[in-house]
Amino acid sequence: MAKKNSRTGWEIPATEAVRASADTRVADLDTNVTPGFEGDKELGERLLEERGADLSALQEKLFANGRSSEEHRSVLLVLQGMDTAGKGGMVRHVIGHVDPQGVDHASFGVPTEEEKRHHYLWRIRKALPRKGQIGVFDRSHYEDVLVVRVHDLVPPAEWEPRYDEINQFEKDLVESGTSIVKVAMFVSLDEQKARLAERLERPDKYWKYNPGDVTERGYWPQYQQAYQAMLDRTSTEYAPWHVVPCDRKWYSRLAVTELLIDALERLDLGWPPADFDIETEKRRLAES
Amino acid sequence: MAKKNSRTGWEIPATEAVRASADTRVADLDTNVTPGFEGDKELGERLLEERGADLSALQEKLFANGRSSEEHRSVLLVLQGMDTAGKGGMVRHVIGHVDPQGVDHASFGVPTEEEKRHHYLWRIRKALPRKGQIGVFDRSHYEDVLVVRVHDLVPPAEWEPRYDEINQFEKDLVESGTSIVKVAMFVSLDEQKARLAERLERPDKYWKYNPGDVTERGYWPQYQQAYQAMLDRTSTEYAPWHVVPCDRKWYSRLAVTELLIDALERLDLGWPPADFDIETEKRRLAES
Repeated sequence: MAKKNSRTGWEIPATEAVRASADTRVADLDTNVTPGFEGDKELGERLLEERGADLSALQEKLFANGRSSEEHRSVLLVLQGMDTAGKGGMVRHVIGHVDPQGVDHASFGVPTEEEKRHHYLWRIRKALPRKGQIGVFDRSHYEDVLVVRVHDLVPPAEWEPRYDEINQFEKDLVESGTSIVKVAMFVSLDEQKARLAERLERPDKYWKYNPGDVTERGYWPQYQQAYQAMLDRTSTEYAPWHVVPCDRKWYSRLAVTELLIDALERLDLGWPPADFDIETEKRRLAES
Repeated sequence: MAKKNSRTGWEIPATEAVRASADTRVADLDTNVTPGFEGDKELGERLLEERGADLSALQEKLFANGRSSEEHRSVLLVLQGMDTAGKGGMVRHVIGHVDPQGVDHASFGVPTEEEKRHHYLWRIRKALPRKGQIGVFDRSHYEDVLVVRVHDLVPPAEWEPRYDEINQFEKDLVESGTSIVKVAMFVSLDEQKARLAERLERPDKYWKYNPGDVTERGYWPQYQQAYQAMLDRTSTEYAPWHVVPCDRKWYSRLAVTELLIDALERLDLGWPPADFDIETEKRRLAES
């Protein structure tokens, strides 16, 4: 759990401050705030480095246990958010703190022809984190109740049962040892406009620009509705949603770092014990 | 290419200083040296951070092109070395500088039952980097001419043709757009003993210790012979080996950073041009 003191800047631990509740109203969200955190950007950025190092230390323990134990333990970070919310930056600046060997990263775009021939969870199951790994989903199975719902890509009778199905899927995952950290990232319509405009100004950002992103802006209320339904129906005790305001990138990155640290600390992992006789091995090594 | 001036500490660019040649003698290697580099550890560690940032910038360009171009461009780092040579640390401290989204990491241990039923390159092909990615192989297809040869896991008539087959495999890879950076990492027998001893002293390192590692020390001359044959027969113009002394971890990490930077610079990538009309999009965005 995030330490509660002035040094850390957190007045309320991130896990509580951004946890979705029955009162969460997507349409009313202020995305330019820093829930639970009283510090400024400078403190936030310094803390991100410090806590990134803590995250890295915890990840190594997870990895060590993955190598040494038969038990499956893994952490899955699910990132959902509108374009420009900062999913890519989140991976770079948060997951970038940990050993690349310990990360199973997957991003989910428009399904390929092969993926379309399968159940929507097919590509998700294939990408789940291995034992000892931190998995990262840049978009996820939630696309199948977001873009799919907004654009009527399948009829309601088809997407409607998915909420329950996803809950069951995640319940099974958690029971088999995967801690799920779900993060819904929100920017305002204005902030999105500013970020898209920057991509049109800078030749090193053109590749990130997609004309379809502007088209999607026309569906903002429908997306808000779909996000609301997602939070209402799939924020569970075993896999709650976290609603992270993302206009201030430094805050969103720090908050997600705290969420991951919390998930790892809850695993309460120690270093794996030696599965060999230490003195015997010291002797063998000395003689070698 | 590494900049040649006093600030960088490189008197000879890393790419030249560690490139395997017909004169390379594995049995005579001094592993406690810093070929081409005149600076000390302090400078080396500072440079690693600076050049790590350069590597990260180049990786982003590779990634951008992977997203925007039909052409396949990728870089594959192949790490081979005896236990404790520092392959894991190399991934953490060198590849750790780049965006995790842009890394396809794979490690190759003892083949699984399924892998054993296939050609030895089967598992390798499956793990090749995707377009725009930096692939990292922690061990590789070279295991099939190293441990396999040392322990007679298959008869000579079977491993002998593999050198040529690997060369052809890598030639095809390079021709289809993958730059291969092959790094053979060497520590001395004494340094290995010290590193294994540390694993037996520290409970946070037990998980890295494997009694088999001591057994393998008994085959040191045979491994040297197998590494020699590997260098002699598979260091090609299109995929040369680099022989990196690894007793000083800071040096080996800096050298490999330079090798990767060199490989990326040779691709001579620009930012992908806009594949949309910029003014039209600015108008659309403003109106959205």
